[in-house]
Amino acid sequence: MLKTKKVMLQVGDTYSHEFSFNKENVFQFAEVSGDKNPIHLDDEYASKTIFKRRIIHGFLGASIFSKVFGMLFPGEGTVYLSQTLKFMAPMYEDETYTAKFTVLEVIPEKHRAKIETLILDKDGKIITSGEAVVMNPTKI
Amino acid sequence: MLKTKKVMLQVGDTYSHEFSFNKENVFQFAEVSGDKNPIHLDDEYASKTIFKRRIIHGFLGASIFSKVFGMLFPGEGTVYLSQTLKFMAPMYEDETYTAKFTVLEVIPEKHRAKIETLILDKDGKIITSGEAVVMNPTKI
Repeated sequence: MLKTKKVMLQVGDTYSHEFSFNKENVFQFAEVSGDKNPIHLDDEYASKTIFKRRIIHGFLGASIFSKVFGMLFPGEGTVYLSQTLKFMAPMYEDETYTAKFTVLEVIPEKHRAKIETLILDKDGKIITSGEAVVMNPTKI
Repeated sequence: MLKTKKVMLQVGDTYSHEFSFNKENVFQFAEVSGDKNPIHLDDEYASKTIFKRRIIHGFLGASIFSKVFGMLFPGEGTVYLSQTLKFMAPMYEDETYTAKFTVLEVIPEKHRAKIETLILDKDGKIITSGEAVVMNPTKI
């Protein structure tokens, strides 16, 4: 009888996921997180800042990493252990971004992987960078 | 005429903020982030995991840092530059946690500070740890 070999995460694997957030998402995130900083919510206030217009909460933008890890790559059963985040440039509503993941290290005996996490704009500029460590007992 | 000296952030300053999230917050966060991992939403599924019951999204828990930086400490005008997060233990709905901040470094000429960011449970156990770098042109 043939044994099916499970396909596990490998160093060098990459995964990309396109996404965008709209105005409703930003106001909902402000509500649920309690972060009502006017830079995210108030056009008039935001127009006088270095960003010139309202920006998306960094944590809302970076929540794409949580979504992808939990649902797509590696997916179901993933436990989030750590995440570093550098907010290098602001994110705006209704623009399309790509979350890009690259597996940097795999520790099979602990079912853990270190994964580079990037958010890129449509020109490939890095908007948010960082690294995550995740555990998944069946996929890593 | 007396000049008023602005009170700026100092190394060693601390700030604490109590908070909790409820079930509605968790479901709202799942909606807005797209992270519908059943560990956060499905009682039956969660009961079979190592956590035994539904847990709060790590990013929802840690969004308290974003709220405090933007609204309370140092407050208005804060720009978030970076954040590290270690999710050391799960967070649950309707429990009271404390976000604790300690200023580790101040770079006045860049208006930047490095701040330790912790989430503690009611027994003082560290649930989430990390460090942030924030900029605030008038308060740092």
